[in-house]
Amino acid sequence: MPTLRIALAQDNPVVGDLDRNAELIRSAATAATAAGAHLLATGEQSLTGYPVEDLALRHSFVEASRERLARLAEEIAADGNGALPVAVGYLDADGSVPANIGAVGGRGIRNALALIQDGKVLFRYYKRHFPNYGVFDEERYFVPGHELHLARIGGVDVAFTICEDVWGGVPIAAAAQARAGLVVNVNASPYEQGKQERRRAIVEQRAAEAGAPIAYLNIVGGQDELVFDGGSFITAADGRLLASGRRFGSELLVADLELAAAGEGDLANHSATEMSTVLHVLSEEPAAVETRIEPPFAPELDRLEEIWEALRLGLGDYVRKNGFKSVVFGLSGGIDSALTAVLARDAIGADKVHVVAMPSQYSSQHSVDDAADLAERCGLHYSVEPIQPMVDAYVSQIALSGLAVENLQARVRGTLLMALSNQHGHLVLAPGNKSEYAVGYSTIYGDAVGGFAPIKDVYKTLVYELATWRNEKARSLGETEPIPENTILKPPSAELRPDQKDTDSLPDYEILDGILAGYVDSDSGREDLLGQGYPADVVERITGLVDGAEYKRRQSAPGTKITIKSFGKDRRLPITNQFRGKPGRGK
Amino acid sequence: MPTLRIALAQDNPVVGDLDRNAELIRSAATAATAAGAHLLATGEQSLTGYPVEDLALRHSFVEASRERLARLAEEIAADGNGALPVAVGYLDADGSVPANIGAVGGRGIRNALALIQDGKVLFRYYKRHFPNYGVFDEERYFVPGHELHLARIGGVDVAFTICEDVWGGVPIAAAAQARAGLVVNVNASPYEQGKQERRRAIVEQRAAEAGAPIAYLNIVGGQDELVFDGGSFITAADGRLLASGRRFGSELLVADLELAAAGEGDLANHSATEMSTVLHVLSEEPAAVETRIEPPFAPELDRLEEIWEALRLGLGDYVRKNGFKSVVFGLSGGIDSALTAVLARDAIGADKVHVVAMPSQYSSQHSVDDAADLAERCGLHYSVEPIQPMVDAYVSQIALSGLAVENLQARVRGTLLMALSNQHGHLVLAPGNKSEYAVGYSTIYGDAVGGFAPIKDVYKTLVYELATWRNEKARSLGETEPIPENTILKPPSAELRPDQKDTDSLPDYEILDGILAGYVDSDSGREDLLGQGYPADVVERITGLVDGAEYKRRQSAPGTKITIKSFGKDRRLPITNQFRGKPGRGK
Repeated sequence: MPTLRIALAQDNPVVGDLDRNAELIRSAATAATAAGAHLLATGEQSLTGYPVEDLALRHSFVEASRERLARLAEEIAADGNGALPVAVGYLDADGSVPANIGAVGGRGIRNALALIQDGKVLFRYYKRHFPNYGVFDEERYFVPGHELHLARIGGVDVAFTICEDVWGGVPIAAAAQARAGLVVNVNASPYEQGKQERRRAIVEQRAAEAGAPIAYLNIVGGQDELVFDGGSFITAADGRLLASGRRFGSELLVADLELAAAGEGDLANHSATEMSTVLHVLSEEPAAVETRIEPPFAPELDRLEEIWEALRLGLGDYVRKNGFKSVVFGLSGGIDSALTAVLARDAIGADKVHVVAMPSQYSSQHSVDDAADLAERCGLHYSVEPIQPMVDAYVSQIALSGLAVENLQARVRGTLLMALSNQHGHLVLAPGNKSEYAVGYSTIYGDAVGGFAPIKDVYKTLVYELATWRNEKARSLGETEPIPENTILKPPSAELRPDQKDTDSLPDYEILDGILAGYVDSDSGREDLLGQGYPADVVERITGLVDGAEYKRRQSAPGTKITIKSFGKDRRLPITNQFRGKPGRGK
Repeated sequence: MPTLRIALAQDNPVVGDLDRNAELIRSAATAATAAGAHLLATGEQSLTGYPVEDLALRHSFVEASRERLARLAEEIAADGNGALPVAVGYLDADGSVPANIGAVGGRGIRNALALIQDGKVLFRYYKRHFPNYGVFDEERYFVPGHELHLARIGGVDVAFTICEDVWGGVPIAAAAQARAGLVVNVNASPYEQGKQERRRAIVEQRAAEAGAPIAYLNIVGGQDELVFDGGSFITAADGRLLASGRRFGSELLVADLELAAAGEGDLANHSATEMSTVLHVLSEEPAAVETRIEPPFAPELDRLEEIWEALRLGLGDYVRKNGFKSVVFGLSGGIDSALTAVLARDAIGADKVHVVAMPSQYSSQHSVDDAADLAERCGLHYSVEPIQPMVDAYVSQIALSGLAVENLQARVRGTLLMALSNQHGHLVLAPGNKSEYAVGYSTIYGDAVGGFAPIKDVYKTLVYELATWRNEKARSLGETEPIPENTILKPPSAELRPDQKDTDSLPDYEILDGILAGYVDSDSGREDLLGQGYPADVVERITGLVDGAEYKRRQSAPGTKITIKSFGKDRRLPITNQFRGKPGRGK
């Protein structure tokens, strides 16, 4: 069997920053050539970043993507790496890019992969299956391709597919029909808990169907709300794991694969009902591999470490990709802001983290002490700004009571943090957790203020688990535990009125999170939850709060639309949009 | 030719409020029976409201929709209106409703129309074409139907279609093949400028293709960001307008139509490649019509009146459907808050409108005078709350300068308004216009604070046009002009520093809005805009601001997702979600 040395560039692109992403691919080509690779694959939309959202509907962006691809091919050749076939993900269109792509019927845009060599594009493959659920909307943007391309490299027929193609399966069936010796599947697959196991399982199944190994390449890095976790891997037709890359970090994964030689005849030029196949012969002779290299096997991460790494990378990349030099947020002495502080330190370094204690008349002494203790343990920039003078200025101006005064305190804190952000250029972090956001137990324009909410998708019970895990990790490394024990042990409170406890308004977090996990994450209905043993009145109240809090989770006010293009679902730009400019934060 | 008396219920449903919507349909059936109608049609998803967004992925909601439909059929029969065939829009599923509909491949939900009579469902039609652009996402939720249903009523074969079906065209071709005598097309079609002309044009074309009249029924009312403008109409095969309903209001439109009698044979039971047809015979004998009624023809609205009515209805329904009794916002003396005030008065009545002048040290006397003048002219609840004491409390606590102090003033105002909202239950309105939001010329958590932004999609130049038009309308009716002339004539300013003018930071609004209309509404690129004669530096700056302001337009902080279901694109509930609860506004 011929051996092919394949290189998978698990890189961290930025949406819209074509030049930066092209540089990553160019560097990978240099490294892969130096490593003696016979083929380099890069991620889904490695040139444009993923997800480009409504940039895909912008004429000028699609044209820029095509033009940059052509130039990249020339650059790689000029670098002396032209002999290496490189698979590049990018945006394409049929023929000339249409004007007003977003209008009804005006689509024709492709989620594409080009194989480039010797300064030229050898072929363009168009993704066949589109994810259109959850965070994905690809049916809004793309039309499917119906032609699978194979490249004969060193006597092996390699088929190229993109992401959902491996779940949908039609291109895999076409690759099997064409007797491909290897299937490359390039991805931009966002992390979620348990996702890697599901990827491995589907790829095992498809490799068996294809009768050939599948090289599954994923990108890495945070992009707005998504974090891509890397973890690229290669699975044999019999299900064996042949190599695996690290999670949550960039890597050029190189492996030598013994693969079936291309068959005789025209099996790889085939016209089936579902998908036709086209073979491009690059080299018939088996490639020379003098010294076999050991394939990499990255360590598997345990559940909490995996989540921590996802949160750390997501926060760090949000700060970096948006060009911030530092962050600021309120440190209350409670568990949420404590966990946020340790995450921020781990993500961008203690010197870039500014925390502010903002005690009110209802803040307990232990809150201020615990906040100071944590800042000291973590080496953060720490200051104290009592809020009572500002609160008093409002309440002496207008008559306020009850909830209005509770929320006022949170809003004074939000206003203080935004003033510090405007004055010093810090990104404000919002330390709210998923349990709070789900039921609306937060103050809009108050503690919900911020440019990024690192633990927005972390339930309160998981906040505690992560805090305990992070302290244990520090202990195991002989470091100071970053989170004061009292912060973990004391009952949670918003401290907006005397002796307030979270449990005054909410059930115990074990019960709350159980209901939320069913109602939010699994679409369990009221009866399912009753069947799980939760009390009827609690289920009724919590599900009502979740639905009612929808506005607070969005915060930006809706307004009547009178034009087809406005700001809403029909103009959905990535927040990190390096194509035109950088997001502002102040006025 | 037989005559059919058709009734179109142009009603205002609320998303998720099945009982309320069922009552509307029941009342329409009573009125249509009293009017001697032979057929009643109601809007797309008239029972569930539109758009239901992710409620379509909730098992319990789809089941509730089906169950409520069956009960509605019985109720209409019990009312003594069972003889009337009634077309009802609702959500359905194939077989039993699947659990976890939102998961990959788990879909099977139908955007459906049922014809009910005598307490029973005669047939269920499933929408064939789905809009999946702009504000629409129907491909996320629904699977298409492939069977057109016709009902023979009074000897006429009536085909039933839903909304996009008339744009896509396949069901119309099937109706033509089946020689339908009438095509009913029920819609939930949101308003946009010029939309009614486009609807009329496509329906004319399709009526010619069908060789039969098309009755185009639209719903009416504001639903979150969308406003449905009614304006139902009936077009003959030769393009003549046979009847038209009012815009922006509920109406039962009744018209007598002379229609082709059903042919012999089985033309209407047909199996074509694209769509098969099924005929249901309700009554073969031509219906008796004793006294012909005159068809209604509603007046056409001019451009500015149409926009005004859209904004008025959108705001009014947002307030009503979310259960608010009153609104509050800041009245600066400038044009945006002035227009918002008149809109609010026209939408919900002066007695429910609370306005607050919040002068700072930089506010001019004319600002305070103009605000008081407008409040007086419009009869609004007016108060003055100077913000300097609160601003001073912040700046004596932390060192602030420049932009940080400008934004602070706006945030103190936002905090004051939210405190009044929490104390008194008012909905806060954000009076920002589209030009400002587009370029980020507003303060996040400051003047952008609010639960609804009535003129969010109105460019500044259109704000001036509407203000002038509204004053002229008052003059023509012999009423006081609501907006002080000085508010319209003076140069706009945020008044956040001495002698500030909008033109310090932005080009003239004619130029700004011209660039925005191209870049935001038409996807014109930089080169297109240069070709239109805009200066290169201005184009570069404005397009960069638009992209950079994306975060401010969203306001709610993104956060790393670690679960498949979180709050973001994969859990998109209507804000007005009456199915479970009401949206909260305070903590």
